[in-house]
Amino acid sequence: MGNRVIKMSTLYLTEQGSILHKTQRRLVIIKNKKIIQEIPIFKIDRILIFGNIQISTQALSFILDSGIICSFFSSQGKFKGSLRPVESGNVFLRIAQYERYLDKEFRVEISKTIVYAKINNEIKFLENYSKTNFKEIIEELKKNINNLKDKNSISSIMGIEGHSTSLYFKGLSLILKNKFLFEKREYHPPKDPANALLSFGYSLITNEIFSLLSGIGFDPYIGFFHELTYNRPSLALDIVEEFRTPVVDKMIVTLINKNIIKEEDFQREENSIYLNNIAKKAFLTHYEKRIQNYREIIKVQCHKLMDSVLNKKIYEPYLED
Amino acid sequence: MGNRVIKMSTLYLTEQGSILHKTQRRLVIIKNKKIIQEIPIFKIDRILIFGNIQISTQALSFILDSGIICSFFSSQGKFKGSLRPVESGNVFLRIAQYERYLDKEFRVEISKTIVYAKINNEIKFLENYSKTNFKEIIEELKKNINNLKDKNSISSIMGIEGHSTSLYFKGLSLILKNKFLFEKREYHPPKDPANALLSFGYSLITNEIFSLLSGIGFDPYIGFFHELTYNRPSLALDIVEEFRTPVVDKMIVTLINKNIIKEEDFQREENSIYLNNIAKKAFLTHYEKRIQNYREIIKVQCHKLMDSVLNKKIYEPYLED
Repeated sequence: MGNRVIKMSTLYLTEQGSILHKTQRRLVIIKNKKIIQEIPIFKIDRILIFGNIQISTQALSFILDSGIICSFFSSQGKFKGSLRPVESGNVFLRIAQYERYLDKEFRVEISKTIVYAKINNEIKFLENYSKTNFKEIIEELKKNINNLKDKNSISSIMGIEGHSTSLYFKGLSLILKNKFLFEKREYHPPKDPANALLSFGYSLITNEIFSLLSGIGFDPYIGFFHELTYNRPSLALDIVEEFRTPVVDKMIVTLINKNIIKEEDFQREENSIYLNNIAKKAFLTHYEKRIQNYREIIKVQCHKLMDSVLNKKIYEPYLED
Repeated sequence: MGNRVIKMSTLYLTEQGSILHKTQRRLVIIKNKKIIQEIPIFKIDRILIFGNIQISTQALSFILDSGIICSFFSSQGKFKGSLRPVESGNVFLRIAQYERYLDKEFRVEISKTIVYAKINNEIKFLENYSKTNFKEIIEELKKNINNLKDKNSISSIMGIEGHSTSLYFKGLSLILKNKFLFEKREYHPPKDPANALLSFGYSLITNEIFSLLSGIGFDPYIGFFHELTYNRPSLALDIVEEFRTPVVDKMIVTLINKNIIKEEDFQREENSIYLNNIAKKAFLTHYEKRIQNYREIIKVQCHKLMDSVLNKKIYEPYLED
């Protein structure tokens, strides 16, 4: 336990009915009048609260004073909102961000870079598996990477990205155990267990990147590759692209193929499907373990993006070997 | 009580040690296991919490789901942060806001308008009093309004604004009872009771406008008249200018001159001065009464600003008769 606490920078609260308190410089989690966890505040970067967990005003005030963003999710993992300290006033970064947004050339360049990295990371992942029917998919993906070079509009880059994604998920479905019946990526709401896990994982990493970008002072709604739409955190989604496969997809293959999460861990509700509470904890534990190896890398990418936006430096994406 | 609840759109929680709960579609405030207030959620636009008040997760989740911004203040009235629903994603407004920010002509025009309204509202206020020594001040203020016309830089407009403000506060000090020893506007921290009341009032109205602008989808840190600085909500401060005198200053004259708040209601602490709890409640009650007459007007101004930013329409300021 001690080690886990030392390494971690995100505190996940999932224990339904527990209360988050404050004592001196520590956060204390209490359930049925018993302390179940105690963490010094300086070890925490952010707090994620799932479902019915109380939080004392002293703790709340302490969290705000410590500059920590605390996000609230439904017990199903749906992001509901967050508690934020007087917001990052790095308004100069946002001014630069808007300037870059208006600069079509900048947008095209960074979009190519992001999609290049995304496809690269998908290929590296598929190459770990020796399925013969991948060869064709990998070849196609490589062609797509090659085709990116000549593109000079966002929509043509988006076309390549869309084509690659459907190819890639065909590959992913061949890796996943059959009984999970994953055919293609579907969401809002997810219709099969694999899609439900993907959606949950993507929601976590998007929130992670959203908070980080907000904290630095970006407007997370103004992206360069993703189109602007009401309520879509486009900039977070731009950065997410590089990390979907290495962080989320890889983990989900492990969870499914090693039977850590099984078909009976899911509950169907009307038109959609959810994880039960025990499996959700297993999911979050695996996610936290996995993200720990990437959190520093993600931070570096967000700062590279800042550098690129402020100083017009070329954005170097995260590429898996 | 009933009437007060029906009219109000802001819920102030100041009762130390109370708890905010939820039952069905209502928020319930409980202290010592007794219900002290019950309000249907649809009557609330925003919630302001001062000091040590608990909030249950069900209430918190309910507030987020209802799209209500909940702001936290220290018991002294210092803004600490806020709980926000998945933020207003009106990213198109922010794009336009940024374009207007780069448009120097737009900035100069709107700054003149804002300062014109501010001085106008100061004059209208002073004219209610028949002090002979005002004549000169009012004449000077009118000259300043006149001088605004030819200005074509923000810094020259700022010069006029600064000069007017010091003139105006000289007038205000003549209206206020002497024992409050108000000479000039001072803050960070305020050094005399009148300045403490002004700071508290300005902090409330700034937060009110900040939330409104955020909610509409503005970036409240990018203003047109106020200079950009880290952590300064410049756009909120732009709009505040029109309302300082009618909302806050007028109220403070009433509170002081009618002896509603007296010198003994203040506590000195090191280098600064604070209101005690009872006087703070009186202050908030008066503020709420006063702001109710202006809340609609402030909303209209924020929407006029949106219209001006999106459609380049001329911004019409709020002018007191």
